[in-house]
Amino acid sequence: MKFSIVQTEGSARAGVLITGRGEIPTPVFMPVGTQGTVKAVEQRELDELGARIILGNAYHLYLRPGIGLIEKAGGLHRFIGWQKPVLTDSGGYQVFSLTALRRIEEEGVRFRSHIDGSEHLFTPEGVIDIERSLGSDIMMALDECAPFPCDEPYARQSSDMTLRWALRCRTRKEQTSPRYGIGQSLFGIVQGSTYAHLREESARELSGMDFDGYAIGGLSVGEPEETMYRMTEVCTAVLPPDRPRYLMGVGTPRNMLEAIARGVDMFDCVLPTRNGRNAVLFTRHGRLNMRNAAHAGDFTPVDPECTCYGCRNFTRAYLRHLFKAGEILALQLASMHNLTFYLWLLSEAREAILGRNFTAWKDATVKTLSAGPADTNQ
Amino acid sequence: MKFSIVQTEGSARAGVLITGRGEIPTPVFMPVGTQGTVKAVEQRELDELGARIILGNAYHLYLRPGIGLIEKAGGLHRFIGWQKPVLTDSGGYQVFSLTALRRIEEEGVRFRSHIDGSEHLFTPEGVIDIERSLGSDIMMALDECAPFPCDEPYARQSSDMTLRWALRCRTRKEQTSPRYGIGQSLFGIVQGSTYAHLREESARELSGMDFDGYAIGGLSVGEPEETMYRMTEVCTAVLPPDRPRYLMGVGTPRNMLEAIARGVDMFDCVLPTRNGRNAVLFTRHGRLNMRNAAHAGDFTPVDPECTCYGCRNFTRAYLRHLFKAGEILALQLASMHNLTFYLWLLSEAREAILGRNFTAWKDATVKTLSAGPADTNQ
Repeated sequence: MKFSIVQTEGSARAGVLITGRGEIPTPVFMPVGTQGTVKAVEQRELDELGARIILGNAYHLYLRPGIGLIEKAGGLHRFIGWQKPVLTDSGGYQVFSLTALRRIEEEGVRFRSHIDGSEHLFTPEGVIDIERSLGSDIMMALDECAPFPCDEPYARQSSDMTLRWALRCRTRKEQTSPRYGIGQSLFGIVQGSTYAHLREESARELSGMDFDGYAIGGLSVGEPEETMYRMTEVCTAVLPPDRPRYLMGVGTPRNMLEAIARGVDMFDCVLPTRNGRNAVLFTRHGRLNMRNAAHAGDFTPVDPECTCYGCRNFTRAYLRHLFKAGEILALQLASMHNLTFYLWLLSEAREAILGRNFTAWKDATVKTLSAGPADTNQ
Repeated sequence: MKFSIVQTEGSARAGVLITGRGEIPTPVFMPVGTQGTVKAVEQRELDELGARIILGNAYHLYLRPGIGLIEKAGGLHRFIGWQKPVLTDSGGYQVFSLTALRRIEEEGVRFRSHIDGSEHLFTPEGVIDIERSLGSDIMMALDECAPFPCDEPYARQSSDMTLRWALRCRTRKEQTSPRYGIGQSLFGIVQGSTYAHLREESARELSGMDFDGYAIGGLSVGEPEETMYRMTEVCTAVLPPDRPRYLMGVGTPRNMLEAIARGVDMFDCVLPTRNGRNAVLFTRHGRLNMRNAAHAGDFTPVDPECTCYGCRNFTRAYLRHLFKAGEILALQLASMHNLTFYLWLLSEAREAILGRNFTAWKDATVKTLSAGPADTNQ
């Protein structure tokens, strides 16, 4: 993997991430395909709307359909019929969400499957082995994602263990080889909850381990937005400038633009697809709830400037009808639209950085985006 | 509308139905788009898989989103973004399914909405007005769809009333004009339950009313298959040979081939889409339940000879995973596949008739189709 920065404006960066399966202009939004599919969107539609990389989830895919099956298929890309890059989350976040079903030890984390209750152990080494088998272009280290709020002693202990796990992942990566003939890179994950000195220490220690890229984890878990931005800043100030930075699980359009201003290059979030399935659509002028009666007789597209299949062919009135009638096509159209919006927004951000007009563009864009229903992560 | 028969073999006919919105080679299968969408399939995908005409339902669309809204949109085609022909069912079948919520009178049928319990009256004239407003290319008369089993006195009374309603529909059609600048034709519907003499009488009386085409209704409602075939035969023997014949709500692949052999030209059924959503897939060698463990490690397509998006790009193993994981993409791929299969089957039937090889082809095809899970309508 190669990362080149093409232009900067303040801390904001426009770059290109070059992988064995294609180039990814950054800043980039990565649609979430947890179980080997981006919900309600076909792979050819991901291509159509311009997705350059999608996410998979090691935890989910390990439990179902199982790693052995995906190996037999020739890796995750062949199994799901997607030829562009895939980043796999280690599943740390999912495992730690299972509060009642898991036990954290130095060795790793023991948990019960949310599907059938069976017992499993995820170690840093085991997770790298899984991600090798998946053949992900970008593998994520196993980390502990601390909850919010989190007291400082626990945050320190957890962040320290995450660092030891990161080194074990790094070592395992060196001991193993890429699968399926294409390079696999590894990102370390900064933790440290909402404590600036812990974040700084975590970022510094990880930087010394020479990862291919760096993620900022454990944010967007309930903390105030300002805290998220401050923690992001603390991390990007320390992380090596020549490596890509990925803010995990973030977020709203505004969140992403503020994080780009602070030096972040990569994002993922379920918001566009989940909101879409709940009839909430992003537009250039704020968000719309398509179930609202206001759209009943509106024969204009959701967003007249949008290039998605739905906006080119259907009206708000029709989309509202589909939602009211409980039709699957509503979920398809809304998911494609919201992903198109997210990808458009980040490509506009990139253009603004290239033109060294990002700050002004961002301030104006955040303002127009704030119309519509309250802009939350939920 | 113009209907030309291109070739026949015994009672089987290959023809072309020419409408103001395009030509429809027959025999034809019409995907069901009850609420203005074929469930889980995009309009451009209907085009891709070769659909030439789809169904809408006057009852459902009248209740939601309402006829006034569709008129404002410029008709059903513009509302749903589908430029090819639409046939609208009158909704008789849906109304009569609401046993507890409806009362049949000579004037029409009073019923309560299944959505909000509100009271409505459908008369033959009112239904034609609704179908005019929808702008359907083929309007269906209002009929009473008698249940199975049904005693003869009720069947006679019901069939006689359906004939009086058919005449009222025919008259109303003459008194009104096509909407949106494109011709609208009207089909009468033969009833008479499982009584051959009632069917014959119904078909003869309707024929005298000079409809643009004729449907055979009230079958595939629980009667034995042989009865369905016999009743179909009785009807097609009487109906004018120069008009298209439409066997409503039928059916399985075998049902359609047997009905073609008896002179039917048009079909609709929810089976391909509903079965698809339930993980049952049609193939050239019988039906497959994609949830079966047998498909878990099968990296071949559902049907290697099929041209659908799924069969060209994905494996049984992946599709099974999507079903097991409850992913929406499973419903999309399975629905597209089954519709592709249905359309392929009827286009093969047409080719066989054109080559005057239909009977041999049909017998061989019915045999190979009978593999797989029991071939039922449910």
